[in-house]
Amino acid sequence: MNYTHNFNPTISDEEMFNEIKKESGNIGYYNLVHQDINPFKEYAKSVKQTNIVVIGIGGSTLGTYAIYKFLKHSKKLDKKLYFLESTDPIELKSKISAIDLENSLFIVISKSGTTLETISIFKYINSLIKCDKNNTLVITEYNSKLSIYAKTNNIKTFEIPKNVGGRFSVFSVVGLVPLAIVGIDIDEIIKGIKDIYDEFFTKQKVYIKLLKKARFFAEYKNNFNINVVFSYSSRLDGFNKWYIQLWGESLGKVDINSTRQGLTPIGIIGPIDQHSFLQLIVEGKRDKTVTVIKVDDFDSELKIPNDKLDGLEEFDYLQNITFASLINKQADATIESINNLDDLPCDVITIAGVNEQSIAGLMYEYELLTSIVAKFLYINAYDQPGVEAGKIILKEKLKN
Amino acid sequence: MNYTHNFNPTISDEEMFNEIKKESGNIGYYNLVHQDINPFKEYAKSVKQTNIVVIGIGGSTLGTYAIYKFLKHSKKLDKKLYFLESTDPIELKSKISAIDLENSLFIVISKSGTTLETISIFKYINSLIKCDKNNTLVITEYNSKLSIYAKTNNIKTFEIPKNVGGRFSVFSVVGLVPLAIVGIDIDEIIKGIKDIYDEFFTKQKVYIKLLKKARFFAEYKNNFNINVVFSYSSRLDGFNKWYIQLWGESLGKVDINSTRQGLTPIGIIGPIDQHSFLQLIVEGKRDKTVTVIKVDDFDSELKIPNDKLDGLEEFDYLQNITFASLINKQADATIESINNLDDLPCDVITIAGVNEQSIAGLMYEYELLTSIVAKFLYINAYDQPGVEAGKIILKEKLKN
Repeated sequence: MNYTHNFNPTISDEEMFNEIKKESGNIGYYNLVHQDINPFKEYAKSVKQTNIVVIGIGGSTLGTYAIYKFLKHSKKLDKKLYFLESTDPIELKSKISAIDLENSLFIVISKSGTTLETISIFKYINSLIKCDKNNTLVITEYNSKLSIYAKTNNIKTFEIPKNVGGRFSVFSVVGLVPLAIVGIDIDEIIKGIKDIYDEFFTKQKVYIKLLKKARFFAEYKNNFNINVVFSYSSRLDGFNKWYIQLWGESLGKVDINSTRQGLTPIGIIGPIDQHSFLQLIVEGKRDKTVTVIKVDDFDSELKIPNDKLDGLEEFDYLQNITFASLINKQADATIESINNLDDLPCDVITIAGVNEQSIAGLMYEYELLTSIVAKFLYINAYDQPGVEAGKIILKEKLKN
Repeated sequence: MNYTHNFNPTISDEEMFNEIKKESGNIGYYNLVHQDINPFKEYAKSVKQTNIVVIGIGGSTLGTYAIYKFLKHSKKLDKKLYFLESTDPIELKSKISAIDLENSLFIVISKSGTTLETISIFKYINSLIKCDKNNTLVITEYNSKLSIYAKTNNIKTFEIPKNVGGRFSVFSVVGLVPLAIVGIDIDEIIKGIKDIYDEFFTKQKVYIKLLKKARFFAEYKNNFNINVVFSYSSRLDGFNKWYIQLWGESLGKVDINSTRQGLTPIGIIGPIDQHSFLQLIVEGKRDKTVTVIKVDDFDSELKIPNDKLDGLEEFDYLQNITFASLINKQADATIESINNLDDLPCDVITIAGVNEQSIAGLMYEYELLTSIVAKFLYINAYDQPGVEAGKIILKEKLKN
């Protein structure tokens, strides 16, 4: 954090650490580092279909998509992953028409087993091609309606642990099974999150960094109510979306004093949004923090060629620069120009490369950060009472 | 606007109207309703290639993408439009590998003619396939470096009017030429914006609505520094991105009293983000306005089938509901649950259908709204001084 702050902490680092340690006994996502992933890998091996179609929404898909989007172009994957989440009829039809349904495995994911969009889309798919034990997998909570449907029809089911919330579920069966099926190395994913877990719970560097950062966000929540993540790789746009849900839905709450809390997440992509959002960051109201995410090694030799073009000689200095170097220098220029402002809090996260460990570690760090900020704000990170009212209204509208 | 406000306006509606009228003499985008689009249509007819590859970034692509994304699945389009904008090497390579370059027209768009990303990507493309007058079109400002390059190589060039800024340029040659080439009816686009223009400048309904809304945003800028657009169609995500640039880059400025101004745009997609961002809106800090965008007629009969599934009987009430009706009821439920809160400003825009006129009208309304809000905030909507510093730093980094 490039920002000086002085305040009187009401919770010491030690107290916070103990709080989180205590919480990690009940809240399931912490302990996913210890889960047995062999059943997931075995199941993945047994899948014959080439197209893996995930039917789910929000926490059931965003994390999986984040990892898949980041890695899919860099790895030789055996299978293709699709996500059906929107009820927009035109999008839905066009997405489905691009998939060979005969050669597809449908993975229906809903923690509660009662997600209206998911059931609606699944019913529609089932009217196009019979969904049964040969082409369907269900991932849901123990004893949900969806699990009863699966049991009745002998459809293979994986259970989501009760104490793992949707938006914290990417490293559970929810994310790991689809990712393993398409050929992403889930051992490496677990390694990535275990490194962070170990560092955190033995109070190493990650612990110190996250505590400091969370304290800053919480302390300055009224000065900086917007937290921008500026990712310098367009394949981190899935991560951005996942971050937006994690941060928004976990931290937008009423606290123990009945006061509204809420830090607003924004995810943008450098270098594209350098040409749009950066103006607002630099000259606009000082209501934002910025976290720049860089990828250290893109493992790409793609270069700007050294051809000279008549009239464009001014750009000859670009010749032979790799695009990897260009994008990272764009990130550095953004960081420098923000830091030159002196009054805009900015920190930088550099992940090592385009691989499982890097993206998983980044995401797990963000989960931990979210949990700590929530504790500082005296709110419950793991519920979402604010969306229930809308669901009830919708049900009434649909029934009439 | 579902919010009661009482304040003492410093600029009357009449004064504002006269300001905008005066401005429309100098600022080019207002008058695009009167431009001659026949040369664009003629050129479009002459294009033989099937793949239309736009190389550009920010204002050179976002508006075009917004319209294309909204319409492409609903119209029978002759050609396919691609956008190369990111310098992310892995994304760039994978995007290019999916395009048949031999059957492509490359449209290089940069207003200044010196956009580093655009030139870099163009140079790279030119090393893969010779770009010349047979497969290249340049769209740029009069006498820019890029126009000199084009002239030297006899490459067809369209000029962007000097007084039309990048983020306000979608209805100029920048957007209309690529869209006309792929088969989108640009006469209908012009009709869509002309309707709004006429209504506005004859002080009809649109004028009254926009003035009221702009006044609200400006007056309550410190209470509600975040303006959420909640679009109920996943094909409006291009629109959301365009809105974010338009709003952020136009309104994030230092005003005439050297005070930082800035309204932060957020674009989310219903029903997907009902499962993430809505919690923050409903229970979080009251720092947001919400504008819900609905599509009245999706022109789609896609239905939830009336099959009964064992275990899922609870959902039988969904049977025979069209997805179009479902998504619109989801929107209505969100609107109702927000309005029930009583302290969260929310307005609704309903566009008629999935067609050129609807999307163009919506976008033109947002351009007008942006101009008016800027005037209320005493800032210049049309410059972007805040990004220049970063560009200079980047150039230095690349030269060394």
